[in-house]
Amino acid sequence: MTQRKPSQNRPRRAARARAGARRRPAGHGDSALWLFGTHAVLAALANPRRRLRRVLATNEAIRRHGQRIDTILAARPEGAAAAPRIEIAERAAIATLLPEGAVHQGLAAWVEPLTQGDAAAILALSGQSTPRPVILMLDRITDPHNVGAILRSASAFGAAAVLGPKDHAPAESGALAKAASGALEHVPYIRVTNMARTLAAAKAAGWWCLGLAEGGAQDLAHADPGGPVALVLGAEGTGLRRLSADACDALARLPTRGPIGTLNVSNAAAVALYALMNRIA
Amino acid sequence: MTQRKPSQNRPRRAARARAGARRRPAGHGDSALWLFGTHAVLAALANPRRRLRRVLATNEAIRRHGQRIDTILAARPEGAAAAPRIEIAERAAIATLLPEGAVHQGLAAWVEPLTQGDAAAILALSGQSTPRPVILMLDRITDPHNVGAILRSASAFGAAAVLGPKDHAPAESGALAKAASGALEHVPYIRVTNMARTLAAAKAAGWWCLGLAEGGAQDLAHADPGGPVALVLGAEGTGLRRLSADACDALARLPTRGPIGTLNVSNAAAVALYALMNRIA
Repeated sequence: MTQRKPSQNRPRRAARARAGARRRPAGHGDSALWLFGTHAVLAALANPRRRLRRVLATNEAIRRHGQRIDTILAARPEGAAAAPRIEIAERAAIATLLPEGAVHQGLAAWVEPLTQGDAAAILALSGQSTPRPVILMLDRITDPHNVGAILRSASAFGAAAVLGPKDHAPAESGALAKAASGALEHVPYIRVTNMARTLAAAKAAGWWCLGLAEGGAQDLAHADPGGPVALVLGAEGTGLRRLSADACDALARLPTRGPIGTLNVSNAAAVALYALMNRIA
Repeated sequence: MTQRKPSQNRPRRAARARAGARRRPAGHGDSALWLFGTHAVLAALANPRRRLRRVLATNEAIRRHGQRIDTILAARPEGAAAAPRIEIAERAAIATLLPEGAVHQGLAAWVEPLTQGDAAAILALSGQSTPRPVILMLDRITDPHNVGAILRSASAFGAAAVLGPKDHAPAESGALAKAASGALEHVPYIRVTNMARTLAAAKAAGWWCLGLAEGGAQDLAHADPGGPVALVLGAEGTGLRRLSADACDALARLPTRGPIGTLNVSNAAAVALYALMNRIA
């Protein structure tokens, strides 16, 4: 990987055409994605499991974060794939590589998606004592910003993983990673083939499957039996599907009141994680 | 206001030009805004303080929500400004009136912004007993999606108001109202001229000003003295500004752990509101 410095005066269209050509290098081009934003990119650099193909930074980003980047790269364990040399680029040149309006903060990385972990290994964590084993199961939450924010909260409150259905949970993307603010590199995000089967397997492995629903019989704090909990969250608007709700051990609601009684789904997830993780024993 | 039915085959560009011409009717045109989305529009229809200029709906939205709309309009109190007759429009024709990509769900309303309430009247609520008086003060949170989600959580947990600085808090907008999911019509959202002065006035009126900060000395649950609390939230990334932090009675953190220790600001607000409103006395 060579160091390139795009000319400041290159017309935007030409830059975009060139970028487009690079976006899908011959021979790969299937699943690689652009990460952008300070936290998402620095966390990817720090993650030995993340394979990086290109890293772009503005001079300003290097001034701001150069020292931290050096520390991160120096700490990359032996055996991890080498990080490519950082390419200095103009802010606008980076923008041409990314979705329109992406707030990249002068940092972008062209990466391969993470190798998805194994749901069975996650479900085996039900015996863990500290932190309390909590996982999240997403029932058709499709907005990458919501899923990203949920990953971020999962990381902050120490949840073990976020699981969703392959067909109805967003794939890794720049927008998801940006909303996750680095958490995508820390919390396993596993898309499974059959969510109903995974839910059944979770129950068999000792997880209490708690669905969050406006019409839940009890407040979350009262419905929480302690021990390993799989929190099942439905989509914004439609909520949990009937099939998923029926498969849960119990349905719980958040203690809200007033004419607008529901939260944004990522906010609901954050509140529920807080309640579960800071439970008064 | 007459009932219009845009032709199905009108070229999109012509529709957009016409829409543009209507977007700023002569004589007004300064501050009116488009609301869109089911919850935002229905809540606006139900709000007697909201002045509506136009309401557009697709036939599908009428099929879905017509009965509820009739009930809402019938319940509009005497003395409230009359709601305009609903104009039936094609989905695409509505889209031309709105920001690109706006998820309007077949409902849009061209409205005047709400008359902002008086911060002094809100601060006088410190003596209220139920629900517990809690207000939110935003220190330069500029993203309308975050502010909208905060309004929604404020409504769900019974907070009395959300205050922000006129210069650095987003004005009412369609995106903000959509994220608020109707809560903009219920929770006073007041933009004040001088936030520092409002913070001082809140303290004088008996509110305990609690700043949320990663470096806070105590967990929120321990830093909460009970009684009226003004929760002060800083911007994503930069956090509370020094001046605001210094003006707070105390700084508290959320009990997070791990490498990604911060939440999205609307998620942090939701967790803090939950913790304050469901405090074990």
